[in-house]
Amino acid sequence: MNADEFRRLGHQLVDWVAEYRERIEDRPVMSPVRPGEIRSRFPASPPADGGHLAEALALLEQDVLRGITHWNHPAFFAYFPSNTAYASVLADILASGLGVQGMSWQTSPAATEIEEVVMDWLRQMVGLSSAWSGVIHDTASTATLCALLCAREKASGFSQQDAGLQAGAPPLVVYASEQGHSSIEKAALLAGFGRSNLRLIATDAEHALDLLQLERAIETDRTAGRRPAAIVAAIGTTGTTAIDPLAGIAALAEQHDAWLHVDAAMAGTAMVLPECRWMWAGVERADSVVFNPHKWMGVGFDFSAYYIRDPEHLVRVMSTNPSYLRTAQDGAVKNFRDWHIQLGRRFRAIKLWFLLLDIGVEGLRARIRRDLENARWLKEQVDGTAGWERVAPVPLQTVCFRHVPLALADDESALAAHNLEIARRINEGGKAYLTPSTLKGRQIIRASIGSETTERRHVEMLWTALEEAARN
Amino acid sequence: MNADEFRRLGHQLVDWVAEYRERIEDRPVMSPVRPGEIRSRFPASPPADGGHLAEALALLEQDVLRGITHWNHPAFFAYFPSNTAYASVLADILASGLGVQGMSWQTSPAATEIEEVVMDWLRQMVGLSSAWSGVIHDTASTATLCALLCAREKASGFSQQDAGLQAGAPPLVVYASEQGHSSIEKAALLAGFGRSNLRLIATDAEHALDLLQLERAIETDRTAGRRPAAIVAAIGTTGTTAIDPLAGIAALAEQHDAWLHVDAAMAGTAMVLPECRWMWAGVERADSVVFNPHKWMGVGFDFSAYYIRDPEHLVRVMSTNPSYLRTAQDGAVKNFRDWHIQLGRRFRAIKLWFLLLDIGVEGLRARIRRDLENARWLKEQVDGTAGWERVAPVPLQTVCFRHVPLALADDESALAAHNLEIARRINEGGKAYLTPSTLKGRQIIRASIGSETTERRHVEMLWTALEEAARN
Repeated sequence: MNADEFRRLGHQLVDWVAEYRERIEDRPVMSPVRPGEIRSRFPASPPADGGHLAEALALLEQDVLRGITHWNHPAFFAYFPSNTAYASVLADILASGLGVQGMSWQTSPAATEIEEVVMDWLRQMVGLSSAWSGVIHDTASTATLCALLCAREKASGFSQQDAGLQAGAPPLVVYASEQGHSSIEKAALLAGFGRSNLRLIATDAEHALDLLQLERAIETDRTAGRRPAAIVAAIGTTGTTAIDPLAGIAALAEQHDAWLHVDAAMAGTAMVLPECRWMWAGVERADSVVFNPHKWMGVGFDFSAYYIRDPEHLVRVMSTNPSYLRTAQDGAVKNFRDWHIQLGRRFRAIKLWFLLLDIGVEGLRARIRRDLENARWLKEQVDGTAGWERVAPVPLQTVCFRHVPLALADDESALAAHNLEIARRINEGGKAYLTPSTLKGRQIIRASIGSETTERRHVEMLWTALEEAARN
Repeated sequence: MNADEFRRLGHQLVDWVAEYRERIEDRPVMSPVRPGEIRSRFPASPPADGGHLAEALALLEQDVLRGITHWNHPAFFAYFPSNTAYASVLADILASGLGVQGMSWQTSPAATEIEEVVMDWLRQMVGLSSAWSGVIHDTASTATLCALLCAREKASGFSQQDAGLQAGAPPLVVYASEQGHSSIEKAALLAGFGRSNLRLIATDAEHALDLLQLERAIETDRTAGRRPAAIVAAIGTTGTTAIDPLAGIAALAEQHDAWLHVDAAMAGTAMVLPECRWMWAGVERADSVVFNPHKWMGVGFDFSAYYIRDPEHLVRVMSTNPSYLRTAQDGAVKNFRDWHIQLGRRFRAIKLWFLLLDIGVEGLRARIRRDLENARWLKEQVDGTAGWERVAPVPLQTVCFRHVPLALADDESALAAHNLEIARRINEGGKAYLTPSTLKGRQIIRASIGSETTERRHVEMLWTALEEAARN
């Protein structure tokens, strides 16, 4: 393909994306296809000859789009907001077009230095002190794994440089709330702690980690000769956005010299609002923090912000230094390849740069406040309407509830079927998409608000749909 | 930003990328900036108000571009080819514009099913049997870590589900060539094997793993009660593209029930040529293979192809199944979140789909053959010119050599300084960019050929520049 053909097709695809976004409300939010339906539209083997790109564009429109669940739809209330703002799409055209590798400073100095700039801007925006150093990771799952690897190596006196974890010594224990994200369990198992050294601590009535239970678990482990290595505090759990008591957890972490990692994957974005920062009071006593601008903030996936207090420790855990990667500037600059698992690095920093120049910090704050108000409105409808039960506080943008008709009130399995059916009707109806989930054994429905395009009318529409689905 | 502004800026950026690529030869390949130079152009804090995106575009042109090392430049001979073909840039406009998450089938069925399709196309293209299942990873570093985690769990009888690696039991050992990529060492240390259980096996005169040394190392470990857990074979080492003796390694892996992982990160792309497949004879006896279409093939970073024979084992090592991720189709479909470390997934499959429809398998083969011929031409110049010494075979597209003037022939440190100076002159001269490296204690120069735009004239220009730099 030559440059002129690229120009022509590039304009066409930019227009396609714009039109897709403009008309997104006409489409069912959740893809209605059956398993195998999209795959069956493709030939079994790749084309021998080129020149078929026009066919891809036709197939995209006719078939592929039916297989898309529209995460940027204003009635997307499932999982978590995953906004890719227009400014971020534009930034990715540049990132792909430049096609640089940011593994070392030398391999593209601008990639490293713009990352330093925007990660420092972001640090200021969420109220973290200048004691933190930031790096872009792909996902919170990987960042949390890095945090637990840092914890493992700190607690074991750098076992990786010697005999590894087989050496014996006291077993190392990881603590997190039973409502913590699955990536914590995954990271603990991958890092080799073992399931029997992972403590998922019970939560209180508001689904936040119970500090007393944590303290008891640590005491039990210490008495048995085990070593508390890491505590993961969730600021905004995935299920209900519960806020773990960070200051109390930090005190325990300090007392037992355990690594404190803060998982604020979705909620971190809310910390751009000064009125939300009470939620992570104590964060300055943590060792690492992760949150995902690729969720609520509008930076397109993937872009996780990982902040660490002691980057030298991180680099010691992560770095290798072969001759083909050495450059004359090493020592004077940051080589971000040593700040995470991957070696290669995409030029992700442009996405946050473009987003902030386009909307500004105040524009972002206004949008986040709008979403919090929409969640409060939905919470009020649930609280004020007979037959609906709210099952968790709403500190952020997620409302968890269920419908409890009088006739089923004592029959938990009938209630579960009833609420699953409500969610199924909403989701298959195509007008909105939300997540059925379970919370401490009860079937619930989660509405996660925060798509960039979601206005009050979409939340009102969701509530009307819920009321209708519950009645029938 | 509204849709019309997106259209306008999108067209502008597409044109910018086209012009950047058209004029790329006017620019110095390696960025000439000093540390801190790009950072100093940015304000210390983010903008409070929006509407500043035009300033970003101006800054990009005036300042940022000087901080870019141009990986798509035809005279980029450093590190490895990292092509982002126009078709791949176009695909990324769609991936970003759609902004979907492919973590589960349900979260966007097309993302999962098109990935199944193109990973099966790719499998056929490189001559792997249908016994392999493919998944897109971000980088080979992460894929190799997954492979070693699979090996650890296989050899330890699923230690992660129990007490973790602390439990004692025989130490688990990992083997790789001393010329293997740094990601193998990194993965072994992160997976908790420990440096003292990592064997970097000596290589032969062609810099390939010495099979006899491997056999001896395994015997020594077994005698001492240690358990061989994994062997990593390199098909195309990073330093010199050496080809480890895969069939012999496979026999040893089978004999000792060790996991065999094949790292063909750069070279895997050459397997689209039937005449190259002798290089990985024996690959069907491996447990996992990784190679990077985001290197030589032209799929933009990031896109690593990971193939595994027993996906159930991989899923057992990687999966967690919390309620908020369960969907009605689980069991009937693939949920690729359980095939790697990350949960979130970008719609990467479109990049390979678009590339193949644009150039076809035969078009790709022609380009790879052109690069192999260019490398052979450079090899012939080195071999046929007095004063130059080739230090490694050239099975692929990388030529390793040094200049040995008669006057310095016996002075290794003077030779090192001389060759470093040659590389410095080339790189700082801006006309070409290659990597100074060391090979078994000797300072060498590596020329890695394979940028999509590199024609014979660019390699001829490099040779002229080398001759000039060596004379002065």
